[in-house]
Amino acid sequence: MIIALKHGAATDKIGSFKAFLEGLGVKVHISEGASQTVLGLVGDTSGIDEDALMSHHLVEKVIRVQEPYKRANRMFHPEDTRIDIDAGRGQTRRIGAGYLGIIAGPCSVETRGQIVSVAKAVKEAGAGFLRGGAFKPRTSPYSFQGLGCRGLDLLLEAKKETGLPIVTELMSIRQLEVFDGVDIIQVGARNMQNFTLLKELGRCRKPILLKRGLASTITELLMAAEYIMSGGNESIILCERGIRTFDSHTRNTLDLSAVPALKRHTHLPVIVDPSHATGIAWMVPAMAKAAIAAGADGVIVEVHNDPEKALCDGEQSITPDAFATLMEILKRYAEFEGKLMS
Amino acid sequence: MIIALKHGAATDKIGSFKAFLEGLGVKVHISEGASQTVLGLVGDTSGIDEDALMSHHLVEKVIRVQEPYKRANRMFHPEDTRIDIDAGRGQTRRIGAGYLGIIAGPCSVETRGQIVSVAKAVKEAGAGFLRGGAFKPRTSPYSFQGLGCRGLDLLLEAKKETGLPIVTELMSIRQLEVFDGVDIIQVGARNMQNFTLLKELGRCRKPILLKRGLASTITELLMAAEYIMSGGNESIILCERGIRTFDSHTRNTLDLSAVPALKRHTHLPVIVDPSHATGIAWMVPAMAKAAIAAGADGVIVEVHNDPEKALCDGEQSITPDAFATLMEILKRYAEFEGKLMS
Amino acid sequence: MIIALKHGAATDKIGSFKAFLEGLGVKVHISEGASQTVLGLVGDTSGIDEDALMSHHLVEKVIRVQEPYKRANRMFHPEDTRIDIDAGRGQTRRIGAGYLGIIAGPCSVETRGQIVSVAKAVKEAGAGFLRGGAFKPRTSPYSFQGLGCRGLDLLLEAKKETGLPIVTELMSIRQLEVFDGVDIIQVGARNMQNFTLLKELGRCRKPILLKRGLASTITELLMAAEYIMSGGNESIILCERGIRTFDSHTRNTLDLSAVPALKRHTHLPVIVDPSHATGIAWMVPAMAKAAIAAGADGVIVEVHNDPEKALCDGEQSITPDAFATLMEILKRYAEFEGKLMS
Amino acid sequence: MIIALKHGAATDKIGSFKAFLEGLGVKVHISEGASQTVLGLVGDTSGIDEDALMSHHLVEKVIRVQEPYKRANRMFHPEDTRIDIDAGRGQTRRIGAGYLGIIAGPCSVETRGQIVSVAKAVKEAGAGFLRGGAFKPRTSPYSFQGLGCRGLDLLLEAKKETGLPIVTELMSIRQLEVFDGVDIIQVGARNMQNFTLLKELGRCRKPILLKRGLASTITELLMAAEYIMSGGNESIILCERGIRTFDSHTRNTLDLSAVPALKRHTHLPVIVDPSHATGIAWMVPAMAKAAIAAGADGVIVEVHNDPEKALCDGEQSITPDAFATLMEILKRYAEFEGKLMS
Repeated sequence: MIIALKHGAATDKIGSFKAFLEGLGVKVHISEGASQTVLGLVGDTSGIDEDALMSHHLVEKVIRVQEPYKRANRMFHPEDTRIDIDAGRGQTRRIGAGYLGIIAGPCSVETRGQIVSVAKAVKEAGAGFLRGGAFKPRTSPYSFQGLGCRGLDLLLEAKKETGLPIVTELMSIRQLEVFDGVDIIQVGARNMQNFTLLKELGRCRKPILLKRGLASTITELLMAAEYIMSGGNESIILCERGIRTFDSHTRNTLDLSAVPALKRHTHLPVIVDPSHATGIAWMVPAMAKAAIAAGADGVIVEVHNDPEKALCDGEQSITPDAFATLMEILKRYAEFEGKLMS
Repeated sequence: MIIALKHGAATDKIGSFKAFLEGLGVKVHISEGASQTVLGLVGDTSGIDEDALMSHHLVEKVIRVQEPYKRANRMFHPEDTRIDIDAGRGQTRRIGAGYLGIIAGPCSVETRGQIVSVAKAVKEAGAGFLRGGAFKPRTSPYSFQGLGCRGLDLLLEAKKETGLPIVTELMSIRQLEVFDGVDIIQVGARNMQNFTLLKELGRCRKPILLKRGLASTITELLMAAEYIMSGGNESIILCERGIRTFDSHTRNTLDLSAVPALKRHTHLPVIVDPSHATGIAWMVPAMAKAAIAAGADGVIVEVHNDPEKALCDGEQSITPDAFATLMEILKRYAEFEGKLMS
Repeated sequence: MIIALKHGAATDKIGSFKAFLEGLGVKVHISEGASQTVLGLVGDTSGIDEDALMSHHLVEKVIRVQEPYKRANRMFHPEDTRIDIDAGRGQTRRIGAGYLGIIAGPCSVETRGQIVSVAKAVKEAGAGFLRGGAFKPRTSPYSFQGLGCRGLDLLLEAKKETGLPIVTELMSIRQLEVFDGVDIIQVGARNMQNFTLLKELGRCRKPILLKRGLASTITELLMAAEYIMSGGNESIILCERGIRTFDSHTRNTLDLSAVPALKRHTHLPVIVDPSHATGIAWMVPAMAKAAIAAGADGVIVEVHNDPEKALCDGEQSITPDAFATLMEILKRYAEFEGKLMS
Repeated sequence: MIIALKHGAATDKIGSFKAFLEGLGVKVHISEGASQTVLGLVGDTSGIDEDALMSHHLVEKVIRVQEPYKRANRMFHPEDTRIDIDAGRGQTRRIGAGYLGIIAGPCSVETRGQIVSVAKAVKEAGAGFLRGGAFKPRTSPYSFQGLGCRGLDLLLEAKKETGLPIVTELMSIRQLEVFDGVDIIQVGARNMQNFTLLKELGRCRKPILLKRGLASTITELLMAAEYIMSGGNESIILCERGIRTFDSHTRNTLDLSAVPALKRHTHLPVIVDPSHATGIAWMVPAMAKAAIAAGADGVIVEVHNDPEKALCDGEQSITPDAFATLMEILKRYAEFEGKLMS
């Protein structure tokens, strides 16, 4: 961390500021320039708050050179992290480090027939994981809120029938106790900075699918991952799912450049959700392909057997047939990019 | 709600779509235009999901005429809501319906001396409420997370000494049990769409200070209020605290036009947080004045006795002296706008 | 300007980089820290391109300490600039340095009757300047593009009848020759970075009303002013008129915190356009008041005698009566803020 | 266009509003619903201003069903437009309708040696077009503004040596006369809504590369194209080059979903500029691949023989070697997507 002091800062004040900084556990190197004094902080600065420093009357600018995350940082963990999921029957499903994770299924679990038929269809097409919402975060209290525990039961039945590991969203720490059979716990975009929840998930031993918040920076996403990791759970899959911008031609703006950016800064796997990002079914295949081309470690795609009757987000769901067609293309992309589908 | 169908929709399909819509509890009026059929939905459409309708193959566009919130809607509750807080000693503090609520205090409660001295100073200057964070949502797990329950105790001591009702943030439903002595529970911007939390607060009987999310629309803020209100708690104070935009000259962009917009659409009081919005102490007075001029029912301002040593957000805190100066101006603005400070 | 070099940069490479920088006309001070070398550049860095520096393989980060604008910079010109307009009949209209400029009139000049009657009404209410568009930048080539030169003639007639100086938009340098009678030339938001136009206006001797672009930062706005000023024309009025954000409850998001920010960084007067910012007539009074409270040197307000029949932007125009009511309030605000209306 | 009237609109007022609308050249169909009257406008509504309609006191909402652009609209021109450029020596370079246009070269033309060597290198690697800036739009008046006419001469020499058609930016209509030898005229993002310039280019007979503005919607980009097309010039290549969002991990946010969106709404070719969008050289290959995967008709890539010494934007330029490597990959992607490189 580098701190540029204001012009004309008095020497004695600089001295006491240096002492204050050293009290935070870092070494301070003072460089007196012709017109400006610059302090270089050496050591672990991840606990130092830039905003707090900025309020000091001597400080002109603060520049963080080292990223504020440690466990998520590729610098300290150069090799890719791979998430392995035991899929029973001696099978392991993998995401990251050369393995593409393809997660597919309906926005909401609605009926046994629906979830089982979609699960069979997406498995047949080549998906590695089944998604489906049981607890649904909805903007309106009057909208369908998901089947809750009953939805979880139906997901487990679909898992039993197909062997696909299941991914579903947790909205509250109180739900943790009923998530026993869930293979990957999803943290939704709106909860990305629900720090209480993140801390709790740090104590759990299941992989977490952490979605980027609608207005979160790359660094904030990695800091959210760091919350979980600092609790001891290092099995995290990051997910780019669109950010909120001025533009409304899609529901959100899919920020595909986040994929190479994240891959450079962290060792964690990164997947993309083209369904929520665009909110438009016919755009999903193009953006899924683009995600793999940009280097993503997988995609999560909404598939519904009858999108017109979906209880939520039908507009963005593709049919099992469209998904099968997409999978044929994605398999070729995977091969082209030298990646495996497990 | 108005639904424009696609050109050339077949009559029998329109009929079965109409039946489907009627099954959702509304009356459907069909208008066949020269080139396009338009459906008008009459009745309570607040539970109808526009996105779901958009996925229907007959639908071209969906236009919501009626706002999706009911209890927060000024249309059904034309008179302003006033929040009354019993401040003990026979005093009542009020916000809304002609009363300006001035809430002031440090970002974080740090020590007994700090919170009591700030409380006395802001009371002396004319503030009606004391704010202070005990549980702090921080971007980094390595930053100071607040004093927790000890912080709440210190707030209660400051309340005892000054009689100022206290406002502090709740981060998790688990904390509710220790919030007994708190007068107004704050829901932070990052939790504005923590729907589990909102539902729980609907069952509590304390006023809620609901902050707008960084990337939330006016309608989403009102839907978040609706979550709480639909649970039975109608004592809500809305707070504009800046949105995230491309512009970084301030930490967030204070959207003051949200004030007249909210005042028109809802009967709930609306206050403004110029400290978090700008993140810059010297801008706070100008934006606090502008907030009152725009019609706000109050402001929440960070005041710290020693901003340079604040454990968080010192950069945006003003000193007690600066706050006293600001209060003199705000009192004149209040008079000018025909509002009372209680 | 401070340049933090990458860890482990070789001494000889640093030497040749230093020589390269000195070739750009600045002095370079090298500070070798424990883990990082930092270069401090002393002198005029306004011509040095940060992006170009960032491409150098030795460079980790570049921090500009000094703002890149000079003539617009309050640091080198501490006193407020005041724009004086000769209004004939021995009168001078002023904006800045304690004078509020109130500019009012229709979006487009439509007929002689319209512009003259609006001019008389806004003068009667207390406006100091008449606005009206003759050349209109419209999103669609099929929309009304303004009356052009005929519109200018009508503006001049309204000026003759009322003595109000006129403000109107120039869209192309080719139009300069017909702007002789115009008192203040407006550069629209879409042309804020039309650098050819800005350079040309630097050679002209009329005050320029420079509107902030929809997605322009404060610094970019000041650099646009700098383009004009570097050509020799230092009579510039800056105008905040709303930025484009995710939020669509208003047409644009009025960034009122730009007012104190600009006032701090530049000596140029700053006004606010609540009409274009919100696009909603009933919001204009609240935001005009807030603008003055935030420290603006004036407002520019759309007033139309018959908003429902306006050929453009009627939605955001207020009637002459509403304007007169607003002016009564603004006069009290002006007095309160210690400002004069000329 | 559909207009929903306010509740309780009086019948006679509706009648006169209908007459007013018919005066705009459309047929009006009135549908009286149980609680709301809806007007359907049939005919060419492209010249009707929604904002103006919204200001009418009877109007609740206006919904445009038909897009406001005509010549750019795929509905009226279903087949893809292909731009053919005569490259001399009997060769034709093509963009669109199955042909990928690969445009490469430096940000700025600097010297004869530089531009000729880059031209040779990119041609050798497989590029179809040479780009290079002679007139440069720079944020600061103190930055390098390009070589101007001398830069154009150097581009023509590079064209002569390699046969590559040249693409360069025009900043002002005054420059048109010196653009004779230029093959494709670029309109930069900052000039996308310089309507005077667009109209002038409508009268010229060269293909136009129209870059999307930093804060422009898809519809605004197509309306800008419509300005040119309505003047008679239908040879337009659209270019997505990143939009401005809250996120600063890249210089702009590349909106790749704009590619399928544009391809659906218009017949014009759509290319992507990964260099300006990201501003980061190492991201360019990933995003160029993703662009082709998303369905783009080409890419425009900055290539510089010595990025560290580039006079502008070196940070985002890749070397000729990196470009050659990228081209090998893009050729395989082209083949995979069934596209040709000409």
